[in-house]
Amino acid sequence: MSSIDHDPGASTAPTIATIAAEAGVSVPTVSKVLNGRPDVAAATRARVEAALAHHRYQRRRSRTPSGPRLLDLVFHELDSAWAVEIIKGVEQVAGPARVGVVLSDLGGAHRPRQEWLDDLLARRPLGVILVMSDLEPTQRRQLESRAIPFVVVDTAGEPPAGIPTVGSQNWNGGLAATRHLLGLGHRRIAVIAGPTDVLCSRARIDGYRTALDEVGAPVDPELVRHGDFFVQGGYQHGLDLLSRPNRPTAIFAGSDLQALGVIRAARELGLRVPEDLSVVGYDDLPLTEWIGPPLTTIRQPLREMAGTATRMVLSLARGETPANQRIDLATELIVRESTARLRGA
Amino acid sequence: MSSIDHDPGASTAPTIATIAAEAGVSVPTVSKVLNGRPDVAAATRARVEAALAHHRYQRRRSRTPSGPRLLDLVFHELDSAWAVEIIKGVEQVAGPARVGVVLSDLGGAHRPRQEWLDDLLARRPLGVILVMSDLEPTQRRQLESRAIPFVVVDTAGEPPAGIPTVGSQNWNGGLAATRHLLGLGHRRIAVIAGPTDVLCSRARIDGYRTALDEVGAPVDPELVRHGDFFVQGGYQHGLDLLSRPNRPTAIFAGSDLQALGVIRAARELGLRVPEDLSVVGYDDLPLTEWIGPPLTTIRQPLREMAGTATRMVLSLARGETPANQRIDLATELIVRESTARLRGA
Repeated sequence: MSSIDHDPGASTAPTIATIAAEAGVSVPTVSKVLNGRPDVAAATRARVEAALAHHRYQRRRSRTPSGPRLLDLVFHELDSAWAVEIIKGVEQVAGPARVGVVLSDLGGAHRPRQEWLDDLLARRPLGVILVMSDLEPTQRRQLESRAIPFVVVDTAGEPPAGIPTVGSQNWNGGLAATRHLLGLGHRRIAVIAGPTDVLCSRARIDGYRTALDEVGAPVDPELVRHGDFFVQGGYQHGLDLLSRPNRPTAIFAGSDLQALGVIRAARELGLRVPEDLSVVGYDDLPLTEWIGPPLTTIRQPLREMAGTATRMVLSLARGETPANQRIDLATELIVRESTARLRGA
Repeated sequence: MSSIDHDPGASTAPTIATIAAEAGVSVPTVSKVLNGRPDVAAATRARVEAALAHHRYQRRRSRTPSGPRLLDLVFHELDSAWAVEIIKGVEQVAGPARVGVVLSDLGGAHRPRQEWLDDLLARRPLGVILVMSDLEPTQRRQLESRAIPFVVVDTAGEPPAGIPTVGSQNWNGGLAATRHLLGLGHRRIAVIAGPTDVLCSRARIDGYRTALDEVGAPVDPELVRHGDFFVQGGYQHGLDLLSRPNRPTAIFAGSDLQALGVIRAARELGLRVPEDLSVVGYDDLPLTEWIGPPLTTIRQPLREMAGTATRMVLSLARGETPANQRIDLATELIVRESTARLRGA
């Protein structure tokens, strides 16, 4: 393949002039689009973006970037103490590096996606960290063409290939929680995971199945539930599971908040935790050791995950290529007082 | 007083040239210092800052500011779901205004104060919101000279006169909590407030005293405690108060987290909430309705406080003068299940 045909994969990097010629606009107009300036007509902008995408244009990274050193931290939904752990993990790395952290909460829908991305391009951050969140392929292309790297902190799913990601070992978490309950003599063990379309849930449920399989216990499909990660989900499933004639003696919840909902459901039904019901949470948020009873849970190293993602994105911003672009940190069983030996076992 | 003597209060506004002459530096050097640029020697910078302060120099606000539209949100200590409420309140206003929110956590000590302020000056935010935090007078002067307005979200103290502040009605909160407990027949009511040097604690305790006074009940100094707002503080004071021979039958805690500590202390001592002990929290964090038992608490409108502060700082950034620069939003008693009528009363 010769370098004179305009194959985007060819070795000659496209220049702004190439893009301007293809889009039929001036070079300053291309520059405005790259910098997220609002004073370009929508149709013109679309033509420029199309040309940028077609040529896989990528701005050269500035050796001495001007302007403030910023990092964008984007939450799908900013909620609960969970988010505080992520923010603290980012701050621990961004603070000493003297990088300002710009926070967005997309779930709140206060920031329409395209406006938000335009503003992000205009402030030219060193990089972007997405938490439980993703971008459309065209938005990803927009970041790539501006040489703005991004990393996904992902406790939920499987991001597209080639996107740097920091996650945690969900399968091992499911395995450890279930083995713990089996070791206490439980066999009727329910699991409440996150939504079905969230991969971490499947990984944890597979860990749960494997643990049951190890001891030859059958999986009762009635005991495998899906719900959101918040308190209400745990409460509803808890009420339903615990009202059944052959109720489970242990419940492995998808988050500490879900576990709180399960414990409330148990209380309302007159069941004591852990005497009548063992409960395992997930995350190990700071409060879990204080609730009644202190919660046995799977620790997910949220701060370390966020810190690792921050180091990764700052490294990408310096033009380095991290050796490992898909990192899963270890999860760990923390035994407290919400689990106990099955009575009579 | 004539306008030709160099009295800083005179009507002639000082120019950059005035400052440069006084500090014995060039005009571009003054400009660099104003823009937080690092390439100025420390001694030179100190001279320029002194001249800026002496002349009460204030940069003119740009009609069409260039660069990204940012707002700095600064926490004394980013912690717990409390901070999430504040962040969401700021986002609710900053998002639609297309203003990026830069978050700092000074308590984590990851950002040394002066470096942090230099970086802030360099990014030229529209304004700064300080949460339970304050600046040194010289730092305040630095913001003022750059025409960067700031507002304090203050649930704790009494900021210096002239600083725009959004708070909440702590005295009323203390009054409402204590009246509620008195109405249930309690007379041995303990209060655990925040640290003694935090004014909100004194306001709440004064509300508590007034409520006791209304019914002619004496204040037992042994039942008035101070501690930090976190779980541990409530736990320690709870253990101590509840181990006494003439123990209180009700405890009014300084935060929902403290209340959680009190409830744990009660549980460890074999006391049931609310049958043996009534507990009132403070803040009404989202989780308080889910813990066991759901917590009676004083709702502090954290999101609204943060939203009000954001509107105020953006208004100041537009050069407007808010009619009211010291706003206290109302607190409200939320009765749930952690309080009950005194047995035998």
